[in-house]
Amino acid sequence: MCFALYIIYAAIEGLRVGSVNRIRRPLGYIMPGDKKVLGIRQEDYGGLWERRTPFNPDQVKKIVDQGVKVLMEPCGRRAFPQVAYEEAGAIFTDDLSEASLIIGIKQVPLPSILPDKTYCFFAHVIKAQEENMPLLDAILKHNIRLIDYEGWLDFKGVRLDSVFGQYAGRAGMVNILHGLGLRLLALGYHTPLIHIAAPHSYPSLAAIRDAVKHVGAAISKGAIPKSIGPLTFAFMGAGNVSRGAQEMLNGLPVEFVKAVELKEKALNGDHKKVYATVLDCEDHLVKRDGGKFDLNEYFKQPKLYRSIFPEEIAPWVSCIINGVLWNYDHPRTLTIENLRNLISQTPKDDGKGSPGTPKLPHRLLGVCDITADPGGSLEFVKDCTHIDSPFGLYNINDDSFKTSTFDGPGVLVCAVSNMPSQLPEEASSDFGDLLLPLIPDLLKSDATKSLSQEDLPKSIYDAVITSNGKLTPKFAYIEGLRAKAGV
Amino acid sequence: MCFALYIIYAAIEGLRVGSVNRIRRPLGYIMPGDKKVLGIRQEDYGGLWERRTPFNPDQVKKIVDQGVKVLMEPCGRRAFPQVAYEEAGAIFTDDLSEASLIIGIKQVPLPSILPDKTYCFFAHVIKAQEENMPLLDAILKHNIRLIDYEGWLDFKGVRLDSVFGQYAGRAGMVNILHGLGLRLLALGYHTPLIHIAAPHSYPSLAAIRDAVKHVGAAISKGAIPKSIGPLTFAFMGAGNVSRGAQEMLNGLPVEFVKAVELKEKALNGDHKKVYATVLDCEDHLVKRDGGKFDLNEYFKQPKLYRSIFPEEIAPWVSCIINGVLWNYDHPRTLTIENLRNLISQTPKDDGKGSPGTPKLPHRLLGVCDITADPGGSLEFVKDCTHIDSPFGLYNINDDSFKTSTFDGPGVLVCAVSNMPSQLPEEASSDFGDLLLPLIPDLLKSDATKSLSQEDLPKSIYDAVITSNGKLTPKFAYIEGLRAKAGV
Repeated sequence: MCFALYIIYAAIEGLRVGSVNRIRRPLGYIMPGDKKVLGIRQEDYGGLWERRTPFNPDQVKKIVDQGVKVLMEPCGRRAFPQVAYEEAGAIFTDDLSEASLIIGIKQVPLPSILPDKTYCFFAHVIKAQEENMPLLDAILKHNIRLIDYEGWLDFKGVRLDSVFGQYAGRAGMVNILHGLGLRLLALGYHTPLIHIAAPHSYPSLAAIRDAVKHVGAAISKGAIPKSIGPLTFAFMGAGNVSRGAQEMLNGLPVEFVKAVELKEKALNGDHKKVYATVLDCEDHLVKRDGGKFDLNEYFKQPKLYRSIFPEEIAPWVSCIINGVLWNYDHPRTLTIENLRNLISQTPKDDGKGSPGTPKLPHRLLGVCDITADPGGSLEFVKDCTHIDSPFGLYNINDDSFKTSTFDGPGVLVCAVSNMPSQLPEEASSDFGDLLLPLIPDLLKSDATKSLSQEDLPKSIYDAVITSNGKLTPKFAYIEGLRAKAGV
Repeated sequence: MCFALYIIYAAIEGLRVGSVNRIRRPLGYIMPGDKKVLGIRQEDYGGLWERRTPFNPDQVKKIVDQGVKVLMEPCGRRAFPQVAYEEAGAIFTDDLSEASLIIGIKQVPLPSILPDKTYCFFAHVIKAQEENMPLLDAILKHNIRLIDYEGWLDFKGVRLDSVFGQYAGRAGMVNILHGLGLRLLALGYHTPLIHIAAPHSYPSLAAIRDAVKHVGAAISKGAIPKSIGPLTFAFMGAGNVSRGAQEMLNGLPVEFVKAVELKEKALNGDHKKVYATVLDCEDHLVKRDGGKFDLNEYFKQPKLYRSIFPEEIAPWVSCIINGVLWNYDHPRTLTIENLRNLISQTPKDDGKGSPGTPKLPHRLLGVCDITADPGGSLEFVKDCTHIDSPFGLYNINDDSFKTSTFDGPGVLVCAVSNMPSQLPEEASSDFGDLLLPLIPDLLKSDATKSLSQEDLPKSIYDAVITSNGKLTPKFAYIEGLRAKAGV
């Protein structure tokens, strides 16, 4: 652009912008010759294991190729190497202040917040979560336009956060198969499951699938002895989490059956297979008054319903995979009392078994609570577990939960709260695929402008939680929740 | 054989045997029509992880095909499934009393010893190890002909126990690569090493090699950042253990260099590679008086020698793999004092590094003591570690050793004492390959006969520790050791 045109443009732009926020936004900032600038945060919230990032190097290249300047904070924990991003055209810097749009995965630590920016990340504020209210206050104070991934629908109506649910399911299933291998060893059995590692030990989903398939081939040849098998799995829920988990189990010689068929399979099934059942609400919830199941009614008045799972299905299950968020008024999948009944029902070892091939203490070997909800749907899940120490044994006899051991009485529990971080490369890439088409419009967002003045598509507009120092009308209810909870 | 011939045979045999041990050995036992009977023990000594067994199912089939009756104790932990052994023709029974020869890997618990048998296993008695003296007493009392694997040379002069040394090296290397991935994550770096799992998570060496190769490809592309790499490895020793370990590292883009070249590589090498050096005795031991290195002299008078490793090589090493057995009068690879000097020499973070890509606290990240010798050659190795919890951090500041954590100050230590059990399928198979040719002769052994009356090949004869209630002349020195130590 020649200098004369620039002067005219700058004058017009100066007039238009000046009235809104002359001080905050220097004229030069919107120089039309300037590139759009996107900042990608380091992930410094959460533990060691948060290695996800919004975009992989290929996706960054696609953004750079659109003429966008991509600034990235250095981050040794990011799942992809810095050199690959550099080759894609990203510029590494500790200073993202040049960017109008800053994206990340997890919450931004308060001291890192740059004012007058559009930020996209999981803020976890829409239920007025107490721990994140200082962050919300800082966001409001610093004139941040916060666009949250939670529940955000892309142009095709796909929830951006669905990716991580799916990866939580995938990681969860691999975790519990890994754990069952170790638990069975502690109970006296080397099984092929010992050859499934923790999900974060694999470089890709393809590598995991290969490993699971290899184990499946061994099971098909009878490597899980009759004195153990067949193993049976119950998936609670049929959404993204459950589907992700089921997908991983598919590498084994699995036969999916109806819940009512599980008893027959557990008792007389083929030990060269595993069996699984998927339980959606209508598969185990019945109306207390004997009336017909009605999903809408259940969600409105859950107390009208009870679950037949504990008595009629759980006795035939080796492993429960929980992928359903639970509210306090929903029936639990298994209460502590249910578990006590389950375990006491199982016949004890009669002492005649060979010491070399002991009987298992009870059928239910383990649970994977992918929702990581202590005291929730699986009431005996005492604590979340961690990627570093993903398992514990819950012992009903003394209501204890011992982590880092597989030996002793109890049911194996896996309740890792950040499972998608165990598969960060592919979870990030799939997430980036959903986010990428939104970037050109997101780059139009100017947090110093009034939201109503902006020409943002509905998909983005609907996901804006704060702008111009205030909660947007859609999310104004958060203020009410805060007042009510005093947070 | 017709009945008349049998009568004649039995009469002769009865005369011959009767004088030696008429009561213990009923006539029918050596009926020539009888099959030779081999018993294979369950592995009930040692922990959960002892999954090795002397023979894989294919090897058992080869024995069965020779007309031998193979009895196996059921064992859920054995690395190969029972069904595969059954298909090979083995008979599962808790009662091995029909067998003349009973083989296993580890020690036999006292109550399981059957009298008048030939037993092969690792007894760990030849140094009069105190913990195994009750076992030795029982062996003598029960007229066991004990043939120990330790130091046993097969017909070709190969040590049977060399297999397990090699597998200890292989497992050890994979362990420490796995651990370095976790340690680097705790220090702020996601590296491709995180995609190497614990060795027992893989179904085969081939699967491990694939995984290491995949990691190697990522390193070749620069996935270990300059702020870390290049990583450097020092192998102490050049025997079976070291060779096994080196073999596993070969999947990475490794350049083996002389010890004197390590400094240059550590400082100015290519971070898309790793560097390694192998230190045999003559590579780091020098005579205190300046004289020429002499291996025989060193073993006779080790105190005449000192190691230049701590000052001249260790400062340039990221990871030490120790595969050399140490005696108290040998120079140590690293004393606690050496380690203190090493760590204090490393420049501290100047505080200017990006928080996203922190400096490493010191070059030496980890050690793998495959000899699992607390207080030995690596003096700061405080304790053996376990397959369940293979790592700890040794913190020189307070001389503490914390297991089950990767976070905090310290040097990562792996000192798992039963590493070959992490690769039980292939370790067992390779061991079985060495043992298999010895089986026909071993089956000729009759513990009720005087050893001098037996027609055993020298290879076997030399490995017999006890027979006819006494130590053999070769091992009679054990009595002296016991008397001296009072055990």
